[in-house]
Amino acid sequence: MSEPHEPDKSGGLTRRHLLWGGAAAAGVGAAGAAGIASITGAPPAVAPPGTPDAGAIDAAFTPQPAFDDAVPFYGEHQAGIATPAQAHGLFISLDLRPEVDVGALRRLMRVLTDDAARLTAGHPALADSEPELAIIPAQLTVTFGFGSRIVERAGKDMPGWLRPLPAFGIDKLDSAYCGGDLLLQIGANDPLTVAHAARMLLKDARSFTVPRWTQSGFRRAAGAENPATTMRNLFGQFDGSSNPKPGTAEFDQTVWSTDVPAWLLGGTSFVLRRIAMDLDGWDKIDRLGREETIGRTLDTGAPLTGTVETDVPDLEAKDRLGFAVIPAFAHVRRSREGASGTKMYRRGYNYDDAVLSGDPSVSNSGLLFATFQADVDLQFVPVQRALDSLDLVNTWTTPVGSAVFAVPPGCEKGSYIGDTLF
Amino acid sequence: MSEPHEPDKSGGLTRRHLLWGGAAAAGVGAAGAAGIASITGAPPAVAPPGTPDAGAIDAAFTPQPAFDDAVPFYGEHQAGIATPAQAHGLFISLDLRPEVDVGALRRLMRVLTDDAARLTAGHPALADSEPELAIIPAQLTVTFGFGSRIVERAGKDMPGWLRPLPAFGIDKLDSAYCGGDLLLQIGANDPLTVAHAARMLLKDARSFTVPRWTQSGFRRAAGAENPATTMRNLFGQFDGSSNPKPGTAEFDQTVWSTDVPAWLLGGTSFVLRRIAMDLDGWDKIDRLGREETIGRTLDTGAPLTGTVETDVPDLEAKDRLGFAVIPAFAHVRRSREGASGTKMYRRGYNYDDAVLSGDPSVSNSGLLFATFQADVDLQFVPVQRALDSLDLVNTWTTPVGSAVFAVPPGCEKGSYIGDTLF
Repeated sequence: MSEPHEPDKSGGLTRRHLLWGGAAAAGVGAAGAAGIASITGAPPAVAPPGTPDAGAIDAAFTPQPAFDDAVPFYGEHQAGIATPAQAHGLFISLDLRPEVDVGALRRLMRVLTDDAARLTAGHPALADSEPELAIIPAQLTVTFGFGSRIVERAGKDMPGWLRPLPAFGIDKLDSAYCGGDLLLQIGANDPLTVAHAARMLLKDARSFTVPRWTQSGFRRAAGAENPATTMRNLFGQFDGSSNPKPGTAEFDQTVWSTDVPAWLLGGTSFVLRRIAMDLDGWDKIDRLGREETIGRTLDTGAPLTGTVETDVPDLEAKDRLGFAVIPAFAHVRRSREGASGTKMYRRGYNYDDAVLSGDPSVSNSGLLFATFQADVDLQFVPVQRALDSLDLVNTWTTPVGSAVFAVPPGCEKGSYIGDTLF
Repeated sequence: MSEPHEPDKSGGLTRRHLLWGGAAAAGVGAAGAAGIASITGAPPAVAPPGTPDAGAIDAAFTPQPAFDDAVPFYGEHQAGIATPAQAHGLFISLDLRPEVDVGALRRLMRVLTDDAARLTAGHPALADSEPELAIIPAQLTVTFGFGSRIVERAGKDMPGWLRPLPAFGIDKLDSAYCGGDLLLQIGANDPLTVAHAARMLLKDARSFTVPRWTQSGFRRAAGAENPATTMRNLFGQFDGSSNPKPGTAEFDQTVWSTDVPAWLLGGTSFVLRRIAMDLDGWDKIDRLGREETIGRTLDTGAPLTGTVETDVPDLEAKDRLGFAVIPAFAHVRRSREGASGTKMYRRGYNYDDAVLSGDPSVSNSGLLFATFQADVDLQFVPVQRALDSLDLVNTWTTPVGSAVFAVPPGCEKGSYIGDTLF
């Protein structure tokens, strides 16, 4: 069993050397090839003099930080929560095999922690079968979450909210997208980086777990727009305008759990709701109707009572006829009145999957509504109840998947995610 | 019925103004908001003095050409063929509704051409219901292909190769990924751009067609590596090392059809093979075995007889014991000996879909092997036959989908894709 490992940076060759020395290695001499060789164990290839100019091509290319940067894995909190959302998000839920006891859980999480630490640094995993796919970190993060069964098997106290959400009237849940014992949230700005990380993690998890579901989503590509821009969903709306900002006291209060069993301090909770969006129905609503449904304008995302996205909606404002500017059924009103001052932190992704056979729609699209919050019962459930009872957006959205996980704290080098539990 | 349309660039506000003036519009004055308004018809919002500094944030951001650039839609050939492959590729096959005659086909292709011309320029489609999703072109291309039924309904001559590929012994085809009447190949560097374009096109096609299949794939993100780098597949191999380079005579001879009915001159053929890759089986092969299977090294992609990726494999070379350096079963040998000097142009994508229920594997991955060639029978089929009979890679790859389309030439402004056929 491998020990947790910090990728070696002492070899004299930086990751960037490996990366940009790859295909061009022969053109620039042996350094790049030797770099790859240091990963693979293959003998270094030495380029003959006069080999053509692939090196010149690479030298003209400067990688963007969105792809060249690695997000630190170790720390007080797990990465992938306060980390700015990457372009691609993959959520994988695994079920424990029956025989997996606390000792096996410890071994599993040591292995997965080691994999995540290496891969997020842009290094191959141990015994990585495709090391060349590992060398662009693209701000990769891997975030682990535990379902109630893991806490049971560890024999530790359960946070009260670690259970399926209460049933809502709008739900049409498909068990194929619900629940699970172990969550892997994999995010990166490059889809190949995501695919490779998922593959390595799933291989190392397979003797302990079986896949329950995977859900893949996207935002704008890294570099396509200002990273400060709020994401848009497939209805064209800004999605998450009122999110607390990572690095602020509001974010910390919103996200990090305090009133929880000791093993979860420094952690948080994660809710993933798969929300199917009826794009065909939404198409029948005109622009004004859409804006009143949400309570925000579509172009700037400003509340109907404001001028910029960051303006706080004025729920008291009336128009000349005395009607509320933000209607009673508007999403921003329902979510705010339900919240009673509490928030959740939204870190969701769009999905646009292949049309299901026999579905008369031409789209199979929606939102992976992913949230982190200190307490599911105090922050997520009240808002969802308010939206459930009277939110016009419900007309075109249907929750079809639902899962809740406890997200343990981060760990230091030498330890592993879950060390406080097992 | 709309006429083909070149997006208006005379409005005084460039696309970039719209784009970067969106959420930040109020911060920089009314220009950005007016820009959006010119799309949407909404009245411009005017920012009050002293509105905070969203503008300053956007001003600090410079979009990359990979997202800011539009690929010209009109021309002798359709875009999306010689265009450098974008990060995301979506292939959609549509079946004609029974009542669609040649007149309806003409109307369909006029509408879809108009949509594609606008969207690829970074402009909303006509009656675009989510115009804000349209403004990052991200080198979007939309390429149309016709199945044999469209040619039949048009009553025109059929290219001899426009039919299903001959059955190969390695095939395990699933009809859910085969055939179809109308192909849409949608490529862009931004996944939201792809999703929006697909949505708009499918909406406008829905009264003429029903979706048959959609297949989504990816390469490295734009900006993650040198664009000159050959893509890697999920086996970690370079994929397409011997591709002819767009802009060369070799490319033109490889791709553009000459010995075809007049309506197809300036066009090409497109083959999409969905090739499932057995990553679990591949994992059992060591690095040397993998390299001999392919005939290339994994790190640089050089043939086993060479030092750089662009070296031509020396099929005659022998090692000290007299054995072929590139083994008899190696993929590069089989594909080259089968080709008899002809090539195809590969423009494929990786796929990594959710694991299928009940599948003991932890991955559902493979290659969307997409090729353009002047003549399917002369270029694709011989290579495939050679690979079918003796290619060790077959051990770990299984074609599960197959489709062939005729790709008509491009069109000039004022006309539409398919104008030579209908």
